[in-house]
Amino acid sequence: MTTPFRTIWTTSDRFVEVIDQRKLPHEWVVVKLITYKDAVLAIKNMTVRGAPLIGATAAYGIYLAVREMVEQEHEGTFLDRAFEELRASRPTAVNLFWALDRMREALDRSGNFIQTSWDMAGKIVEDDVETCRRIGVHGLPILEKISEKKKGDVVNILTHCNAGMLGCIEWGTITSPIYQAHAKGIKVHVWVDETRPRNQGANLTAYELARHGVPHTLIVDNTGGHLMQHGMVDLVIVGTDRTTRNGDVANKIGTYLKALASKDNGIPFYVALPSTTLDMTISDGLKEIPIEQRDENEVKYVVGRNSKGELDQVLICPETTSACNYGFDVTPSRLISGLITERGICEPSESGILSLFPEYR
Amino acid sequence: MTTPFRTIWTTSDRFVEVIDQRKLPHEWVVVKLITYKDAVLAIKNMTVRGAPLIGATAAYGIYLAVREMVEQEHEGTFLDRAFEELRASRPTAVNLFWALDRMREALDRSGNFIQTSWDMAGKIVEDDVETCRRIGVHGLPILEKISEKKKGDVVNILTHCNAGMLGCIEWGTITSPIYQAHAKGIKVHVWVDETRPRNQGANLTAYELARHGVPHTLIVDNTGGHLMQHGMVDLVIVGTDRTTRNGDVANKIGTYLKALASKDNGIPFYVALPSTTLDMTISDGLKEIPIEQRDENEVKYVVGRNSKGELDQVLICPETTSACNYGFDVTPSRLISGLITERGICEPSESGILSLFPEYR
Repeated sequence: MTTPFRTIWTTSDRFVEVIDQRKLPHEWVVVKLITYKDAVLAIKNMTVRGAPLIGATAAYGIYLAVREMVEQEHEGTFLDRAFEELRASRPTAVNLFWALDRMREALDRSGNFIQTSWDMAGKIVEDDVETCRRIGVHGLPILEKISEKKKGDVVNILTHCNAGMLGCIEWGTITSPIYQAHAKGIKVHVWVDETRPRNQGANLTAYELARHGVPHTLIVDNTGGHLMQHGMVDLVIVGTDRTTRNGDVANKIGTYLKALASKDNGIPFYVALPSTTLDMTISDGLKEIPIEQRDENEVKYVVGRNSKGELDQVLICPETTSACNYGFDVTPSRLISGLITERGICEPSESGILSLFPEYR
Repeated sequence: MTTPFRTIWTTSDRFVEVIDQRKLPHEWVVVKLITYKDAVLAIKNMTVRGAPLIGATAAYGIYLAVREMVEQEHEGTFLDRAFEELRASRPTAVNLFWALDRMREALDRSGNFIQTSWDMAGKIVEDDVETCRRIGVHGLPILEKISEKKKGDVVNILTHCNAGMLGCIEWGTITSPIYQAHAKGIKVHVWVDETRPRNQGANLTAYELARHGVPHTLIVDNTGGHLMQHGMVDLVIVGTDRTTRNGDVANKIGTYLKALASKDNGIPFYVALPSTTLDMTISDGLKEIPIEQRDENEVKYVVGRNSKGELDQVLICPETTSACNYGFDVTPSRLISGLITERGICEPSESGILSLFPEYR
């Protein structure tokens, strides 16, 4: 389990394999997706999560549908239904629609359906890997400079949630510069916010950093401010689910609090993002980005491995307590030092974004 | 269980009773402290918690040590050791030292050790009840003014950790103005930070607010910033374990992040405190207050009631992950709107504190 891995892969043209991320870090279960319905279910029940990985899973879902349609001599409506079901599997994930659109366009252009859909799904995967690799290439110098300034002493990075390889295919977004720095021999250490309520930091970020051999320490979400006040954080990097035209960033709930603490303590706060998260139709993140409210039981119950080694959940409050569960918050651009994208680093502003992505002018 | 109660009481002169707060809200277990070592353990293992309750428990611990010393004809060094062990039971809570000093002074003044220590421990308890009641009297107008400004609409208060009656003897500090407002018919609603790692908000604050019939909603610690950005918080009130001469405040880890968000959104941020938490020997809270580091397992495991209804804990990260667990952080006075004390409200500054407590000049 110490060899590098991807979050989705093929060892045959008959099925696709993914990790059941609901069981991480406690169990390593590989799930075979044999039909497109398996892909729909894997997205729906969060076997796979993270926008790029959802997109890739949907793309391979279309490939599986195409193969089934051709081999079983189904009518074309079979494929239409696969597109519809995959599109409805997670209605808010922008990458999902984007990946399905790319698959549709490719199929519209070519007659060799099986090969075309196989190739395009593979290309979606490889493109994400390359995007994330480049985010690392552009982010690496930030870590190198801090390391130099500290004369080779450990660079302490704080992150929130999981914007790592487990949400992508390989590299991840915020983890890409960290993995590349680590591979180059730069001493890094990551403070991992547990990220309540779903604990993606504790479950996933801690897990993948360990696999990569990157030193890290788990903290509760309350701790970052104290660490920053005491010079124990050199840099904060987080991911984003949606980035507005003026550089506001919607990310996992709690990100805003870390941005405030970074500002108060003069610590650089960077956001790593594939340009697919840019939403240039929106300017004011606070007013315009709708924030998803999720089930209160995610707050009231905590999932983990119990004393018998089984996956279980425990209730942490009186049974009758009501809870409120916003999934994301918006960090205003004024608190952000820079956006690390696959094309380079820019200011979190319209002009900054347009300097790297002139196609949005 | 709906009748008012206290957190520490005596029904005999042979022992003291407390609630095992580690089991709340799931189980109501009363623990008898029979020897001073029981009191040391109860403080250490957090059977009791909250600065005033720790102080009261330590005071009764001395009473139990005195009784044992006299009855078993131990030498005076026995009592000295009890003082030492109780003093070392928790490092950050200044009430602990204050209560022990009061016990020592009382014993130094009188020959009737058993009666003297019994009386002084009882007085420490009654003084805390009265202090908390007065904090409520002085804090109430803040809530009344917001209620008037909102034309009787609900006043939304956010709090962190438990600075309620469960951390004191009765009333609590931050809950005292809330309970008094609620009793007066002012509409209040409390956002309860769960307060990882030990979840005192979810376990204790939610529990005691429910007992008092005060409307409240549980949130993860990440949520407060988002609520403040969206006008859903009118007021933040927190407690403190130690307050410096210049008005810096050490409170449960994560308090500083909420203070930053309050400042950023123009929301009043008050600290409710009995003057026993004042440490006038210290000015710079960040540099001078030692912050307790606790066991990493408090971060790695979450305690609650499992699906079978039993108390259990679940591991939320890989077994080999290291965690770091600071118990408190320091909120600088510049982020605080005012200190609500038993003598009134003052600015969080030396001159503010001295205006109410001229004896510290």
